[in-house]
Amino acid sequence: MSVTEFARQAPAGADIAAEMAAIGRAARAAAHTLGLASTDAKNRALIAAAATTRDNANGILSENAADVDEVAGQGATPAFIDRLTLTAERVEAMAHGLEEVAALPDPVGTVIAAWDRPNGLRIERVRTPLGVIGIIYESRPNVTADAGALCLKAGNAVILRGGSDSFRSSTAIHRCLVEGLTEAGLPPEAIQIVPTRDRAAVGLMLTGLEGTIDVIIPRGGKSLIKRVQDEARLPVFAHLEGVCHVYVHEAADLAMAKEITVNAKMRRTSICGAAETLLVDRSVAGTHLKPVVEALVAAGCAIRGDEATRAAVANVTPAIEADWSCEYLEPIIAVKVVDGIAEAIAHIERYGSHHTDAIVTADQAAADRFLAEVDSAIVLHNASTQFADGGEFGMGTEIGIATGRLHARGPVGVEQLTSFKYRVRGSGQVRP
Amino acid sequence: MSVTEFARQAPAGADIAAEMAAIGRAARAAAHTLGLASTDAKNRALIAAAATTRDNANGILSENAADVDEVAGQGATPAFIDRLTLTAERVEAMAHGLEEVAALPDPVGTVIAAWDRPNGLRIERVRTPLGVIGIIYESRPNVTADAGALCLKAGNAVILRGGSDSFRSSTAIHRCLVEGLTEAGLPPEAIQIVPTRDRAAVGLMLTGLEGTIDVIIPRGGKSLIKRVQDEARLPVFAHLEGVCHVYVHEAADLAMAKEITVNAKMRRTSICGAAETLLVDRSVAGTHLKPVVEALVAAGCAIRGDEATRAAVANVTPAIEADWSCEYLEPIIAVKVVDGIAEAIAHIERYGSHHTDAIVTADQAAADRFLAEVDSAIVLHNASTQFADGGEFGMGTEIGIATGRLHARGPVGVEQLTSFKYRVRGSGQVRP
Repeated sequence: MSVTEFARQAPAGADIAAEMAAIGRAARAAAHTLGLASTDAKNRALIAAAATTRDNANGILSENAADVDEVAGQGATPAFIDRLTLTAERVEAMAHGLEEVAALPDPVGTVIAAWDRPNGLRIERVRTPLGVIGIIYESRPNVTADAGALCLKAGNAVILRGGSDSFRSSTAIHRCLVEGLTEAGLPPEAIQIVPTRDRAAVGLMLTGLEGTIDVIIPRGGKSLIKRVQDEARLPVFAHLEGVCHVYVHEAADLAMAKEITVNAKMRRTSICGAAETLLVDRSVAGTHLKPVVEALVAAGCAIRGDEATRAAVANVTPAIEADWSCEYLEPIIAVKVVDGIAEAIAHIERYGSHHTDAIVTADQAAADRFLAEVDSAIVLHNASTQFADGGEFGMGTEIGIATGRLHARGPVGVEQLTSFKYRVRGSGQVRP
Repeated sequence: MSVTEFARQAPAGADIAAEMAAIGRAARAAAHTLGLASTDAKNRALIAAAATTRDNANGILSENAADVDEVAGQGATPAFIDRLTLTAERVEAMAHGLEEVAALPDPVGTVIAAWDRPNGLRIERVRTPLGVIGIIYESRPNVTADAGALCLKAGNAVILRGGSDSFRSSTAIHRCLVEGLTEAGLPPEAIQIVPTRDRAAVGLMLTGLEGTIDVIIPRGGKSLIKRVQDEARLPVFAHLEGVCHVYVHEAADLAMAKEITVNAKMRRTSICGAAETLLVDRSVAGTHLKPVVEALVAAGCAIRGDEATRAAVANVTPAIEADWSCEYLEPIIAVKVVDGIAEAIAHIERYGSHHTDAIVTADQAAADRFLAEVDSAIVLHNASTQFADGGEFGMGTEIGIATGRLHARGPVGVEQLTSFKYRVRGSGQVRP
């Protein structure tokens, strides 16, 4: 780059930094208002946004068609185009999603704990909004509505940064959310979208926009999550991958082991809670291994087995070391025979991703040990790993699953998007 | 620096990076063991550490004397030397502190919430350790024992990095903690101290030691906290300052206003919960302002007043803009007359530090509004800001107060040093 070129670009860089900082300040100011907004106002905004989304479905679809045309011309894969494409049904699902978030209980103001002190002070721990949330996502334009709604419900301001490929779609959806805010008398800056495709905006968000963003939530593929986790200078709610295990313990009921394993792997193979590795106790390799693997094969699953598995079942591809930590997200499973629960737990600790792991057993003591010792966000006994989902947990909709150990772990729903403060009520107490 | 000098230094940098990374890995491994340790084992370690501390009091004191000699020779201030100096009483207090932490309830394994799903799944949210905690502190050697004990009780491994001035003292105290761990059969790597005075160690800890540290807690002066908050690439539990307010509302009982204000400011002026600014409603400036200010003056406090305050009370130094955001930590208070609760709340939002703020009023609606709208970790009604303390909250001892909005806000006690996971118990459920 020549000096002249650099000089021409420099102001642009400064401009976007200034623009993003202004977005951050506006979000912080809106967060203050939003933190005090009534449940009713927030719900009215969501319901009005849903109505506006339905009213503007054609406009959203035509903006989306322009996005799709552009990437199709650039040779995008069918899977990419599918993620990007909106249909009338998908727009309706988005509007319905906004109404579902309106129907969720408002977490703000909930008393989480309360106790009295000997000096008569009454202490309450009460939920507050988190503040300002930055959402960085990729091609799915519906994240605009889903994430924006969840953040709003918890009283947070949100800064949305969608994929540049879905820029027109996300912008059109964002306009509906802003219309909802305005109709409810809430500040439009409560839900902002980064108004440029410039990738520098992401880097700026990851530095926290001069302290105005409290947490970043990335939504998308592994390369996005990894970049955000590596570069963010502020807390991130995310999981990089879900290398989930089903462990068939020696005391497992065979029919249950088959049903849970097939469901955990094959119900949907592309979700983070899908099982990627099956561990089977050596003592039941003779009775359980073959029928469970055959059930997987019958369901269309390919097997990568260790030596013991290949000894027990014909036509199994040998597993290599990389298989034990592979998140296939496809109808493939790695299968390993282990010498009991200690080896199973050690294997999960070594190769897993601390996301979701399950044991199948009729032995309560073994189940208790597994649930205590496996260090994952979600541990299950006699249930499918595919239950790793905020909706299935009864949290309403979720913004994702977090495997970090701070603040939010497991499904991140509206409650996990809150903070808290202490309210102390006295009658003139002073400290001795 | 010449190239030769650089070449000679480079390996040292590489050495400390490798050494710190090894400390991180050892901490992570110890955290795994510690997460499964029984309450009894952790308590035995703490009680044995207390006994060892008492047995080795003379050795600790002589190491401390060497530290004190060194800094005294370098012209340290009396306040600095006081913070660094241990006495027989201070060593005994440290040993007693270890026993107090042993007596606290163990948070690990506590079921925080539990609910049943319509499909029969039982979901429990259960406390787990956080993992590995990095403590960066300054001259007070007792932090070694206090922080080490709290982290251990919550099942965490800890990496301690004390001030280079208290290196010998902290190392001697650390040996007692390790003796306690060993006697209880727990891994000695559960509590490690950085074995070098090299300041590069701090920078390395702030990058998370290759993902082995989960959270950093700084203990010390503002410059340390600021450096940690600015440079850390991982979550930090801390507060930079406590610019705490007492707001005397128009419906305040005068005697209560006097007592709370004097206590909030003067009980101990050097703690973060000490009041730094007094706000008084204009409608009671005639009745309340003068007696409250005179009570402060009588208690030895200097006043920096706005115009209205100076009109009401003689001999008050004029406040300048910087006074409103000043954390004096001394017997000085800024006093401002406000036009009602909205201005009081706006002032606190603008100049405060989101730490601890109090309203004095007999008007319940005003109190409720203040407690709802003031965005601080702790908000009090009719009680002194000096109650901002984990012990006063009934949490047992605390490691500090956090003003961040994620995970820990307010006093950070043993419970705030935990994470959680979801335990799900089923009877063969698969996801439809």
